[in-house]
Amino acid sequence: MQDDVFRRDCPARVVLDHVTGRWGVLVLAALGAGDLRFYELREKIEGISEKMLSQTLRVLVRDGLVLRTVEPTVPPRVSYGLTALGRGITEPLRGLTGWIRSHAGEIIAAQGAYDEAIMSRNQA
Amino acid sequence: MQDDVFRRDCPARVVLDHVTGRWGVLVLAALGAGDLRFYELREKIEGISEKMLSQTLRVLVRDGLVLRTVEPTVPPRVSYGLTALGRGITEPLRGLTGWIRSHAGEIIAAQGAYDEAIMSRNQA
Repeated sequence: MQDDVFRRDCPARVVLDHVTGRWGVLVLAALGAGDLRFYELREKIEGISEKMLSQTLRVLVRDGLVLRTVEPTVPPRVSYGLTALGRGITEPLRGLTGWIRSHAGEIIAAQGAYDEAIMSRNQA
Repeated sequence: MQDDVFRRDCPARVVLDHVTGRWGVLVLAALGAGDLRFYELREKIEGISEKMLSQTLRVLVRDGLVLRTVEPTVPPRVSYGLTALGRGITEPLRGLTGWIRSHAGEIIAAQGAYDEAIMSRNQA
């Protein structure tokens, strides 16, 4: 990684924030399996509020990663899907989430050891 | 990506939050180049507050990704570096930040087009 992402005004850093924000990764991952409607996304991603989901979608649509499609039915049917650009980013995202999933056991063990060390220090 | 990260109580999702949190990526990336002391990290990562940096470091140390070393000098010299586990995650992180950097131009163009469309809609 070059030094630019460490700069406050670096465009790559702004996009990094969008994509790796608390919900960005999960929305992009959810859409990786195919287009979804708003309520389907909300059901799939546990714990996301309606407000956070619309905010996250608006940012990703503006970044050109997600496409919002309105079918002219009554009522209008709105769905979200990845653009070509958005499909491109799912591969490195999958690399990251895959690594985390395959090392989750080691990380949980480290957390347990850390908490135990803190506890025994507090008791000493 | 499997469905598990969409579950609120999934351990991989908690770690994903730590690693991809606003500052987690940048701290891991900064340490990828070598060990650093607290004030060096703070200088390298523009815009991070002292409070956010210590909080991020504590989470990453607890996850077993970052090692905090205290040299018994006067005053004690504290430095931070990646563990073997932490070095493992820098590769998929670099994949992600590399993708973002090489597509930053397209994303900025998409943002400009979006803002223009909103503006002309508001003027209509």
